[in-house]
Amino acid sequence: MTFTSVAIIGLGLIGGSLGAALRKAHPGLPVRGYDRDPRAREIAAARGLATVLNTPSETLRGANLVILAIPVDELAGVAGEMTTMTPEDAVVTDTGSVKAQVVPVMEAVFGSRYVGGHPLAGTERSGPAAAHPDLFRGTNYAITPTARTTPQATGCLCALVEAVGAQPVFVSPGEHDHLVAYTSHVPYLVSVALAAATAGIPGAGELVAGGWRDATRVAAGSPGLYASILAANGQAVLEALDVFCQELASLRQALKLGRGTLAARIEPAQAFRERLAAKRGWL
Amino acid sequence: MTFTSVAIIGLGLIGGSLGAALRKAHPGLPVRGYDRDPRAREIAAARGLATVLNTPSETLRGANLVILAIPVDELAGVAGEMTTMTPEDAVVTDTGSVKAQVVPVMEAVFGSRYVGGHPLAGTERSGPAAAHPDLFRGTNYAITPTARTTPQATGCLCALVEAVGAQPVFVSPGEHDHLVAYTSHVPYLVSVALAAATAGIPGAGELVAGGWRDATRVAAGSPGLYASILAANGQAVLEALDVFCQELASLRQALKLGRGTLAARIEPAQAFRERLAAKRGWL
Repeated sequence: MTFTSVAIIGLGLIGGSLGAALRKAHPGLPVRGYDRDPRAREIAAARGLATVLNTPSETLRGANLVILAIPVDELAGVAGEMTTMTPEDAVVTDTGSVKAQVVPVMEAVFGSRYVGGHPLAGTERSGPAAAHPDLFRGTNYAITPTARTTPQATGCLCALVEAVGAQPVFVSPGEHDHLVAYTSHVPYLVSVALAAATAGIPGAGELVAGGWRDATRVAAGSPGLYASILAANGQAVLEALDVFCQELASLRQALKLGRGTLAARIEPAQAFRERLAAKRGWL
Repeated sequence: MTFTSVAIIGLGLIGGSLGAALRKAHPGLPVRGYDRDPRAREIAAARGLATVLNTPSETLRGANLVILAIPVDELAGVAGEMTTMTPEDAVVTDTGSVKAQVVPVMEAVFGSRYVGGHPLAGTERSGPAAAHPDLFRGTNYAITPTARTTPQATGCLCALVEAVGAQPVFVSPGEHDHLVAYTSHVPYLVSVALAAATAGIPGAGELVAGGWRDATRVAAGSPGLYASILAANGQAVLEALDVFCQELASLRQALKLGRGTLAARIEPAQAFRERLAAKRGWL
């Protein structure tokens, strides 16, 4: 099974980019979109990210793939409101950055035709003005089916992932949250802590360069959006934060022992980063 | 006083880029360069970064501005070797990332005509192949004169800074090292710790995205080069690391208290980062 009509609820960076990517890949495909913010609807319509409609019910009508691209702490409420409007044969997915808390709630509403997803793409900017049809090209897209999920739902999300130019990565909801604590949530907190430490030092702003700019880039993201995501993955983030702090303490100790010890302690991490950069084709 | 003939010792990323930038700004200016690595000399010559010569003494002959663009832990040794070859009226500067340990050593060799400098530019790549004439455009360049430095030396370095398109920032050697601990050295260690923490988690590499890539970009740099820099600024780095860890602990505590507390705790750091990005014209 694949999709023949798509509804996107939430036309921010992710929802808007999915719409634009689908329209680019399949020019004839009906892609309808809704956002509760009238200004976001205007921008999305002007940029042609989707056929923008003024109500969720009009948007969902006739769709056989429904994408919820809204903040994680709003998923449960919006899913509840949408239950009766969603066509019974439609596959439903979301794009939330956490999964362990989200998946059971969504399954309770939509049953076995729901399958969780998380595009591992994004920028520090947000909203439909930042949306781009190539946002997902070459990136990974986590898919988190459970024992309950139908193969049709998983297959449909796979088709979406491929249509937008991404690679599917299958992982359980719990494992997903454990991993993104390391790859996304702790890097975000660390980036904020770097900006906070520098903010407290008069004159430091004059001596920042490209390293600081890159290391703090994610700290430019929306505090509210990130706080919701981190709060929904609290336990895994606390554990990953402890591992990070152990690594940092070990580097601190190596620094006290001198140049040679420090360089030897840095090397495996640098090698890991290099391997990943080569694999992903980062410059 | 300004320079009419420049010698660059060390044709890596920084030395090579200074040569290329000077040649671009002043096509008629004699810019001679030397690197002890024959392969680096070949690449620098092929790329036209400077008039590349095969010995330091030929390179230094007739220069009235001498730039030492070599690793910080090699400065003392190379400066000692160069003493008798360096024209007596030449201004001497270095590009080292630390200054408190370097400046007294350089002053002991070259006297009041030495002035410390540190271009706040660079990439995770190194060597003459990565050199670029626009590397310094729009960046800041720290200049660290002391009570001993002649105004002529400071003026000459200022002219160099402006010629390569950077902005001079005056700061004492000690203050410089205190500030770069926050803006460069701790961000580097944190970036390495993030890569190390992720390296230890099977499967995490599949779920990295742009945030992790940017947060760990400086960890791709040369471990030996960074270890030398950090070891030469050990005390300031340890202090800044403690401030960073306090900020991170405070974010950890806020996360335990929930979404609202965490968002409120993040906001000032995000605002600082936004202001700096706006001031610097970062996208």
